[in-house]
Amino acid sequence: MIIKAGIVGATGYAGQALVDILLHHPQVRISGLYSTTDEPRPFAQVCPRFAGLVPLSVKKFAVKDLIASADVAFLALPHTASMSVVPALLKAGKRVIDLSADYRLKDSKTYARAYGLAHRDKQNIARSVYGLPELYRQKIGKARLVANPGCYPTGAILGLAPLAAIHGKDILCVYIDAKSGASGAGKKAVQEMLFTEVDEDFRAYKVNTHQHLPEIAQELSHLAGRKQKPVFVPHLLPLKSGILETIYVKMRAPRAMTTQSVIALYKKFYQREPFVRIREKGQFPALKDVAGSNFCDIGLQADGDDIIVIVALDNLIKGAAGQAVQNLNIMFGFPETTALV
Amino acid sequence: MIIKAGIVGATGYAGQALVDILLHHPQVRISGLYSTTDEPRPFAQVCPRFAGLVPLSVKKFAVKDLIASADVAFLALPHTASMSVVPALLKAGKRVIDLSADYRLKDSKTYARAYGLAHRDKQNIARSVYGLPELYRQKIGKARLVANPGCYPTGAILGLAPLAAIHGKDILCVYIDAKSGASGAGKKAVQEMLFTEVDEDFRAYKVNTHQHLPEIAQELSHLAGRKQKPVFVPHLLPLKSGILETIYVKMRAPRAMTTQSVIALYKKFYQREPFVRIREKGQFPALKDVAGSNFCDIGLQADGDDIIVIVALDNLIKGAAGQAVQNLNIMFGFPETTALV
Amino acid sequence: MIIKAGIVGATGYAGQALVDILLHHPQVRISGLYSTTDEPRPFAQVCPRFAGLVPLSVKKFAVKDLIASADVAFLALPHTASMSVVPALLKAGKRVIDLSADYRLKDSKTYARAYGLAHRDKQNIARSVYGLPELYRQKIGKARLVANPGCYPTGAILGLAPLAAIHGKDILCVYIDAKSGASGAGKKAVQEMLFTEVDEDFRAYKVNTHQHLPEIAQELSHLAGRKQKPVFVPHLLPLKSGILETIYVKMRAPRAMTTQSVIALYKKFYQREPFVRIREKGQFPALKDVAGSNFCDIGLQADGDDIIVIVALDNLIKGAAGQAVQNLNIMFGFPETTALV
Amino acid sequence: MIIKAGIVGATGYAGQALVDILLHHPQVRISGLYSTTDEPRPFAQVCPRFAGLVPLSVKKFAVKDLIASADVAFLALPHTASMSVVPALLKAGKRVIDLSADYRLKDSKTYARAYGLAHRDKQNIARSVYGLPELYRQKIGKARLVANPGCYPTGAILGLAPLAAIHGKDILCVYIDAKSGASGAGKKAVQEMLFTEVDEDFRAYKVNTHQHLPEIAQELSHLAGRKQKPVFVPHLLPLKSGILETIYVKMRAPRAMTTQSVIALYKKFYQREPFVRIREKGQFPALKDVAGSNFCDIGLQADGDDIIVIVALDNLIKGAAGQAVQNLNIMFGFPETTALV
Repeated sequence: MIIKAGIVGATGYAGQALVDILLHHPQVRISGLYSTTDEPRPFAQVCPRFAGLVPLSVKKFAVKDLIASADVAFLALPHTASMSVVPALLKAGKRVIDLSADYRLKDSKTYARAYGLAHRDKQNIARSVYGLPELYRQKIGKARLVANPGCYPTGAILGLAPLAAIHGKDILCVYIDAKSGASGAGKKAVQEMLFTEVDEDFRAYKVNTHQHLPEIAQELSHLAGRKQKPVFVPHLLPLKSGILETIYVKMRAPRAMTTQSVIALYKKFYQREPFVRIREKGQFPALKDVAGSNFCDIGLQADGDDIIVIVALDNLIKGAAGQAVQNLNIMFGFPETTALV
Repeated sequence: MIIKAGIVGATGYAGQALVDILLHHPQVRISGLYSTTDEPRPFAQVCPRFAGLVPLSVKKFAVKDLIASADVAFLALPHTASMSVVPALLKAGKRVIDLSADYRLKDSKTYARAYGLAHRDKQNIARSVYGLPELYRQKIGKARLVANPGCYPTGAILGLAPLAAIHGKDILCVYIDAKSGASGAGKKAVQEMLFTEVDEDFRAYKVNTHQHLPEIAQELSHLAGRKQKPVFVPHLLPLKSGILETIYVKMRAPRAMTTQSVIALYKKFYQREPFVRIREKGQFPALKDVAGSNFCDIGLQADGDDIIVIVALDNLIKGAAGQAVQNLNIMFGFPETTALV
Repeated sequence: MIIKAGIVGATGYAGQALVDILLHHPQVRISGLYSTTDEPRPFAQVCPRFAGLVPLSVKKFAVKDLIASADVAFLALPHTASMSVVPALLKAGKRVIDLSADYRLKDSKTYARAYGLAHRDKQNIARSVYGLPELYRQKIGKARLVANPGCYPTGAILGLAPLAAIHGKDILCVYIDAKSGASGAGKKAVQEMLFTEVDEDFRAYKVNTHQHLPEIAQELSHLAGRKQKPVFVPHLLPLKSGILETIYVKMRAPRAMTTQSVIALYKKFYQREPFVRIREKGQFPALKDVAGSNFCDIGLQADGDDIIVIVALDNLIKGAAGQAVQNLNIMFGFPETTALV
Repeated sequence: MIIKAGIVGATGYAGQALVDILLHHPQVRISGLYSTTDEPRPFAQVCPRFAGLVPLSVKKFAVKDLIASADVAFLALPHTASMSVVPALLKAGKRVIDLSADYRLKDSKTYARAYGLAHRDKQNIARSVYGLPELYRQKIGKARLVANPGCYPTGAILGLAPLAAIHGKDILCVYIDAKSGASGAGKKAVQEMLFTEVDEDFRAYKVNTHQHLPEIAQELSHLAGRKQKPVFVPHLLPLKSGILETIYVKMRAPRAMTTQSVIALYKKFYQREPFVRIREKGQFPALKDVAGSNFCDIGLQADGDDIIVIVALDNLIKGAAGQAVQNLNIMFGFPETTALV
């Protein structure tokens, strides 16, 4: 079986990463590449690294064209853009993997607060599945619409899920200190993302107000069975891609754990997961360990009633395009690691 | 009055920064440059950026030579090296500004644990003054031996001092997530600090076990009047210099403060400080704001009972050479900002 | 004597570098800062690293305001913007140091070709002096209008001047392979200068068509006394500032020189220059040797009839703001190195 | 058919790149990983990015062990190390792909001059084939010992081969200005390759004395049918991997070509090559176009009698590991692009 896949937003960083991965997928043929271009242009001319590899042109996105040519649509769009095309795609019987934020938050009021405008497709929110395979593999298998998780939430949720699920009632507070490479900001020309403004610099931004925080809170609360509101401070790293999150968890004192017991807990929780790697005691992941791969690596340390969790992933792969293909593999019954290792 | 200054460890990164600053100091003449070189070599040959600016040679360090030529000694040495020469320098009546860690910890047992060997000059620990002008200006003015603070502690202590001093009894827990540029590791050739190993990477190291932690704990405990043991995780940034520390403080709930009240507290605490700048609400420092300068910039935000403190400084300047010259200015009665703005 | 200086384009990279240098100039007071801002804003709010150092606001540029408040105007403007204000400034008796390209080319047709539009102030081209002190010190001293050289031309001309002046008739061909940091492109938000597009990349641009080429050709031809048309290929380095140019010169065979004789020629030519440093045989300059300084460093090697010249300078300092202040020092009779070492 | 491959020097940068590529090769099984380690260690512990992917241990290299387990040996060793093991490997009937410089130079005296010591296996020099498939595909197919080209020579030779082969007698002079990322220097801990010494810097090194120059000269002379001695200046870029070479060729005047005719010449010369991509007029390759790929991209421009050739490749892939696997594919009759696109 060969699946025809259309990629909307193909010239962005996540879009290019999708092209890269799907080129190596034996069961997928890229049937269309779309962007905001006015005239069709050879994709390899816009993105010269694909010269000789991708003969397609990138065209101005039109939902009809996508419906006519693809079985599954990857939407690598800015948030708020997806919800205007998803209804038509679903109606036409297409499967949709949405890399935007539009269907991640189950509560449309929370969405409105986080993204600054009312949701325009509330009915499909309920039908969508949050595309974190480690938590929702069964539902993803049956989904028509997968809301691919945000890059920061992928790390934060995978880094906290075992604790939240097993010891959620003993978590007193959670601080997530997150650092991301610049590709997370996309390809739009803004002064603060110029090379000269990012190179040799490091800065926090959206201090405890980032739009990914409600997504993290939603999933942690769901896992813990009670409201979780972590503190979340993202920072901008002077490098291209990669997210490292250092998470501090204060546990109710009598439930203090040893580093060994925390590691054992995580290893058990993720024992069947192909893309989560738990480090041994005293070992912590670096960004270069996950660069270009779909792995999420986790290191752990307990000191008294404090637990330190360090999570690393590639924001464009496990945090976007790789996870999207992992979801496609689950949706279509392909081996989950196809094209990803 | 012209002071003659000798710099030991002059070819290292902090040593070169000292040369740079002292070249612009109207009351100081560099009288000697010392390193581990066997043969004397023109300093400008070892460090070509000083060609045409520094006619001196760098010589193999000999304490006698230093005593014969200098009024004040800057020791930019690895820890444990300073304590073998400080007694002789003090005995000869010299003032000493020690950039190593040897005289920072008041408890020699803590020193032994942190640095892995017994202190060999315990009697001078008591005579030394911790060289953080914002806390110890009076004592520095009379000191013969100043223990110049570590780079991470300078940021962490300045970032927490107002809270610790005024609300110390209401601090429940403190997490210091610290990020430093590579110059903090010095100039020694080790594989993990190669360009290829640091570039495009980001990693935590010495997770809650870094030797600067006892120094931070000592000063915070002193300020708060009770034992403080923050969690401290340093990380390595792919850039040359700069430290940014994001600090999370959980306050006893009824003492929750607003962002405005926290900012007011800090502004008052540092109102006469020439090198501490407090940001307005919603503004946070970036490394590039302090690059090459002796400033320590602090941004603040309160969310419920959580306070987020973001501190930025240049590890080679306010975290080392600049602070050392600030201490020299205080010790010799020069205007404190001389050669530093 | 205190000179009042106005800086137009103060928030750009060259403008900020000017502020930085002039803050340390004992004979200059910054009287006004101008940009394209609509409302006046505290300069230290736009550029936080100047907090506590510069109390001025930056205002929307108006030539009247500048005339009313300044003795000398630094124009750190895009090319074509300067020529619309220079006539008024000169008429009002002001001295002008123009960092744009508008008055560098003596032939207005060449200007039109290089910059794509006709020159609108031809009469002042003749009155302007090309502000390379190493070649035109006398004229700069008497000039009302100094055309501050481009960053690439500063390096190329200083790197070739001794050869062109002394052996110009024996130069067969010249290839200038130039590499610049990203600050040379300014602060305008364009996609190709995003961090993600420049980091870990290296590329040539404007291959032998760069607008600085006629400027280089003009000065080399003048020095050699006959038309010179070097090949010039600029490249973009993934770093903030610095220019390194590797220049290949083929000499008429019988005039082959040794490395030692070439070095001797250059040392003699630049023997009284405070900001040109010639390296010894086998030593070549690196960008870090000149970072942040007004020096231009030159290394030389002769192999048969080929001469290799390697030139390094900081594009924002010797290639822009530093050279501008060097010109100011000459124009007003201050020691030439004031505020520059 | 499954080939068993042993990799010597597996933990170096080229070695890791080989592991990466061979993991995706359907006809190759990695049978052994070797380094200088004393005790065997899990490869994924030494190189954590391979955790979950490579279950092998890396062992101290012993030629017997390699002979017993592998059909083909990749030697990713420092030069001079290969020639001490190649004779035994060949005698045992193994195929050898040597990534060191030991068998690239056909003249052992040239080798001695370039590498500073006498060759110890002269008889196998004659049996070796220079592993540049674009020039020696037929011979590689039958070779027992392939000398994998150096990274700089791969770019320089591919960039000049069409000109040298077709118009060699009209080439007057050639200047190769080469720039390489830091991985070219390997993983050895040396001070000048520290992050702090390379970041934000750019420098030339081994100016016209680099050991790759004789390799370039040998192949160009062979192509042109007469002695070629280009000038070659390598530089160090502050990035991980990638080589860009800007090559200036002066042609005998009457043979001046247009840009279009040069591009046509190159396209024809490389028309059947799967890994050489010629750019259209006005387009030049950037390092990011070839990062991580086995492509060598070439852009061309003619201006009068000057031809400018810009070549980009990834030094670890087309410049080392990728080309080595391309050679393996040719040697064993696999499709040449297997595991490489």
